[in-house]
Amino acid sequence: MRANAGNVGSYGDDALSRSLNARFGAVFETDVAAFPVVTGTAANSLALSSLVAPYGAVLCDQSAHISNDEGGAPEFFMHGAKLVTLPSADGRMDAEALRTGLRVNAQGGILKPPIHALSLTQATEWGTVYALKDLADLCAIAHDHDIPVHLDGSRLSNAIAHLGCTPAEATWKAGVDVLSFGGTKCGAMAAEAVVFFVNDRTRPVLKDFERRIKRSGHLWSKARFLSAQLLALLEDGLWLKNSAHANAMAQRIVEGLRRHAGAQLPFETQGNEVFVILPDRLVEELEAAGYGFYRWPTPEGVSGTLIRLVPSFHTRIEDVDALLAEISA
Amino acid sequence: MRANAGNVGSYGDDALSRSLNARFGAVFETDVAAFPVVTGTAANSLALSSLVAPYGAVLCDQSAHISNDEGGAPEFFMHGAKLVTLPSADGRMDAEALRTGLRVNAQGGILKPPIHALSLTQATEWGTVYALKDLADLCAIAHDHDIPVHLDGSRLSNAIAHLGCTPAEATWKAGVDVLSFGGTKCGAMAAEAVVFFVNDRTRPVLKDFERRIKRSGHLWSKARFLSAQLLALLEDGLWLKNSAHANAMAQRIVEGLRRHAGAQLPFETQGNEVFVILPDRLVEELEAAGYGFYRWPTPEGVSGTLIRLVPSFHTRIEDVDALLAEISA
Amino acid sequence: MRANAGNVGSYGDDALSRSLNARFGAVFETDVAAFPVVTGTAANSLALSSLVAPYGAVLCDQSAHISNDEGGAPEFFMHGAKLVTLPSADGRMDAEALRTGLRVNAQGGILKPPIHALSLTQATEWGTVYALKDLADLCAIAHDHDIPVHLDGSRLSNAIAHLGCTPAEATWKAGVDVLSFGGTKCGAMAAEAVVFFVNDRTRPVLKDFERRIKRSGHLWSKARFLSAQLLALLEDGLWLKNSAHANAMAQRIVEGLRRHAGAQLPFETQGNEVFVILPDRLVEELEAAGYGFYRWPTPEGVSGTLIRLVPSFHTRIEDVDALLAEISA
Amino acid sequence: MRANAGNVGSYGDDALSRSLNARFGAVFETDVAAFPVVTGTAANSLALSSLVAPYGAVLCDQSAHISNDEGGAPEFFMHGAKLVTLPSADGRMDAEALRTGLRVNAQGGILKPPIHALSLTQATEWGTVYALKDLADLCAIAHDHDIPVHLDGSRLSNAIAHLGCTPAEATWKAGVDVLSFGGTKCGAMAAEAVVFFVNDRTRPVLKDFERRIKRSGHLWSKARFLSAQLLALLEDGLWLKNSAHANAMAQRIVEGLRRHAGAQLPFETQGNEVFVILPDRLVEELEAAGYGFYRWPTPEGVSGTLIRLVPSFHTRIEDVDALLAEISA
Repeated sequence: MRANAGNVGSYGDDALSRSLNARFGAVFETDVAAFPVVTGTAANSLALSSLVAPYGAVLCDQSAHISNDEGGAPEFFMHGAKLVTLPSADGRMDAEALRTGLRVNAQGGILKPPIHALSLTQATEWGTVYALKDLADLCAIAHDHDIPVHLDGSRLSNAIAHLGCTPAEATWKAGVDVLSFGGTKCGAMAAEAVVFFVNDRTRPVLKDFERRIKRSGHLWSKARFLSAQLLALLEDGLWLKNSAHANAMAQRIVEGLRRHAGAQLPFETQGNEVFVILPDRLVEELEAAGYGFYRWPTPEGVSGTLIRLVPSFHTRIEDVDALLAEISA
Repeated sequence: MRANAGNVGSYGDDALSRSLNARFGAVFETDVAAFPVVTGTAANSLALSSLVAPYGAVLCDQSAHISNDEGGAPEFFMHGAKLVTLPSADGRMDAEALRTGLRVNAQGGILKPPIHALSLTQATEWGTVYALKDLADLCAIAHDHDIPVHLDGSRLSNAIAHLGCTPAEATWKAGVDVLSFGGTKCGAMAAEAVVFFVNDRTRPVLKDFERRIKRSGHLWSKARFLSAQLLALLEDGLWLKNSAHANAMAQRIVEGLRRHAGAQLPFETQGNEVFVILPDRLVEELEAAGYGFYRWPTPEGVSGTLIRLVPSFHTRIEDVDALLAEISA
Repeated sequence: MRANAGNVGSYGDDALSRSLNARFGAVFETDVAAFPVVTGTAANSLALSSLVAPYGAVLCDQSAHISNDEGGAPEFFMHGAKLVTLPSADGRMDAEALRTGLRVNAQGGILKPPIHALSLTQATEWGTVYALKDLADLCAIAHDHDIPVHLDGSRLSNAIAHLGCTPAEATWKAGVDVLSFGGTKCGAMAAEAVVFFVNDRTRPVLKDFERRIKRSGHLWSKARFLSAQLLALLEDGLWLKNSAHANAMAQRIVEGLRRHAGAQLPFETQGNEVFVILPDRLVEELEAAGYGFYRWPTPEGVSGTLIRLVPSFHTRIEDVDALLAEISA
Repeated sequence: MRANAGNVGSYGDDALSRSLNARFGAVFETDVAAFPVVTGTAANSLALSSLVAPYGAVLCDQSAHISNDEGGAPEFFMHGAKLVTLPSADGRMDAEALRTGLRVNAQGGILKPPIHALSLTQATEWGTVYALKDLADLCAIAHDHDIPVHLDGSRLSNAIAHLGCTPAEATWKAGVDVLSFGGTKCGAMAAEAVVFFVNDRTRPVLKDFERRIKRSGHLWSKARFLSAQLLALLEDGLWLKNSAHANAMAQRIVEGLRRHAGAQLPFETQGNEVFVILPDRLVEELEAAGYGFYRWPTPEGVSGTLIRLVPSFHTRIEDVDALLAEISA
């Protein structure tokens, strides 16, 4: 409502939008260039398109959202550049696998698109969180190969809440060059941001980045309504408070499930995502009771149904407990 | 605030979003498929990309927003399909020019991308409005060549307010197949819609249209916040009331300018855009007094500065009168 | 030299080019539309781009040339459509894996690009050849899902020579809809062809296929020089005779290697490609003796160097025997 | 036939292909990087794609082949970057028009794709030839704006033959950065080349240029057969001799037409293209006599049929005279 007052310039020429870089810079304790957009898919795809030539490629984990869940958006924004995936056990890329991937790609010569960016996800798609040391190792390998690092931070706030570190330590201090900052999952109506940490790898692409936003229809004429959402999340650490609550609810779910003999937890829950394999009949009964689940492909050789439970900033303890009681019953 | 209540499905699976087709259908008195997006550039580009193969082309007026003012977005979404422009006097395409354009294109054979869509703009970029008969003639020519018609309706509400017709008469009854419905200029925070009028030309592309939205990062997870804006505008004709006010303010400006000897009005003001050529010194004095203008290239052989004055739904009479008084003084 | 005589029309309007469809039709015993191009990469990429929307995907084996060895060309021609790969033991896709791949993709809904084409390779990248029954099973599954089948036939002639079947049996009678016909590997300077077998799945894309060729810079003004190469190969079965010779040389190599204790043959040689793992030192000694090899990544847990030996239409028995003698020595 | 001897490396790793840079460098008297391709459309599109970002634009004359006659290939290779055209009287861009075009584009800010390259054509599409001084002026303006210059030299040999200058004077000495070298029109089966004159503007894009060739299916495995054509043309100035003959035949046609009262020559013939407006009935009679013409759109207000006559390296004097005699009769 406050953002709606008065006549202001368009396309980001308003006081709220002009204050974004300073606010993000203060939170991340460094010089940044922040560009708001409405979806994580847009943030990831725009960020990567600024790093990768159309004839290039991105290296990412096989579980990456950019590879599996964005309807081909990265390939659209990158004009056909390829996503090359590496296998991992739990969504966290292994340093040795990264080195091998880079070597195999280079051996392919002109037959393989060259790797122009490394994209990591924190927290990962399987709800795990990279230790800061492991994140730094991966970034260092990339930089040794002259490759910049993008971080899909759709759930960065959950990872920071889990790690108990600063936003700076979780990103550029570990070697991240460009961040997809997630705001929607931690409270915004629809607000994410591409945050460039200004350095020699990112400086050349900053100048024209807004052109890519305009060209994809993501530049708001009334930009203040987008900026206001991000500013509110960053004020007094609201984004982190919201995510700490979501993480706590996830832990409560995990603890409850551990008491249930039929529940298998294939991954460690470190953010706000709980993956659990439940007996088929139990899942059906819960559905009959009104719950709804997205089913994941169950790993080979395992019986039961793999579902994901994702508490958020507005998940209430009583709703968690009601679900757990229903499972026990 | 009302849209924010409760837990609902994502990606459009909520009551507000599900009601969009019915609401748009009621307003336009026909069967429609409406897809909300945040910018006019996204609406235009997505709509055209569903009609035009990458090796095809769009025919449009040389003044068209898609050709001049969208940073190359249509070419991005259409994967390089070409915008072929036709000259016009005041932004309104001429039927004979359209026939010639289609003939010249066809003669080029394999050397020229084939025309796959006609894109018109109502109200036009120069603030003029097609008569319904002229609009229908152009659509008929396109349909005779098996070409669907897209309407850039960023200012459709202003055109309808000017014409005093129904939304149906202004669109599908004249032959329009796909509409970029403008909501932002007539009051929304950021809400437009691609509205397909369901017929044999549009039916084949409806099925996968949401995939194009997802792939361009324009699919909101919390879609209700986008849908709510459009529903509010369509309720009780708010979009048209807002635009009627904007048009009235534009007429008030025109009347004031006509009393000023130094003002030349190169186009008829029929919507809410006033184009006026003022003496250079007057423009500079107004700027010194705090007014800001976007300068247009002045036509050859004319002296003075061409500026555009665009009142909106929230322009007040007293502000219009203050500007006119300043000009007179 | 004969093709160089006289003045003829350009862009395929010459007697040689006009005779291509009839010649290919006679060889394949059905109605075809054949389009010559200079490389297999162009043939594969153009063929797939005509079947797959930019927001769609192609299903192929993880060993496929289109996925690994064409520098991202398919993604370029398809405007970012995705290649989704399936694992296999020896380059031959398994029917059950195909069914699973299609099911997983469909479950992803709007988050995953829909499968618009199945691309198979015959002979495969590992030198194996699909039995006609297996090929037909895969095509039937694709057709059951309304998906057309593309065959990368860069080494189709080697497969036909191995199978002892007719070109028709090896392609459209098994269910192939579009073929990348390989001419360069069996004798041409640079000549391949996209061959559409005319049916309800291919008919809609034939009309504009030449536009895609033009738009990618692959339409020759002096097309007769390209057509002449294909006509010569198809005359009196020259393409098959050349490939039978190459296959025979490959078998001679295999027999020789089998007598060598240190050689491991990971795949069955059915066409003209021999993959062999030799002791590292032996490979180095051969290189010192003047031989050159392309090294493949050696499978995990295996010691030695994986190389590929590919005899061709002009490989002489004495050269094969010299190599084998060198290895024995 | 000579190129067909022996076993050589693929993808350009053969003696003929490796000698291209030296041969082109000797002819153009400077350091070059030359990349052979089969069509002028591929040469132009690849060259421009290396200079222009997908969100950028190319400035060219409204008559340019890249804009009118290549089926949208430049837009395909440039991933949707825009061709912005400037009007001219006879295909030769005017320096003042260029300055205006650059200024208008810059004023558009983020709404207009930025100009990343200037593309000129020599000889032009209307058969005229830029004076070296005019070419140098245009290049200097572009360089002043940090914009590299591409020259479509499909008929460069005709222009050089007309100007009587050296290849170096006609290109890099005037400021050209990248040349589409035309070989097909002056004698090759199908051979053109993208020739980069190595300087600070071109050096950054050389490294990955071959990747663009591979990615568009234009990299020949048996590259020697493409290289051999270019080497033959460059030997002993064959390309220029062939074009001098074509120019002379064009002049003979012009002289003959000047003697015919009904013939109007709208442009000066400086290369090998003669544009002539003949009475409709005369054109029909010539067609009845077996001649074939491509009809151009006749300028407004002029009666008659505009046709183009293009003699080539193998046009014989007796055939020219026979046509002229037929016209006189």
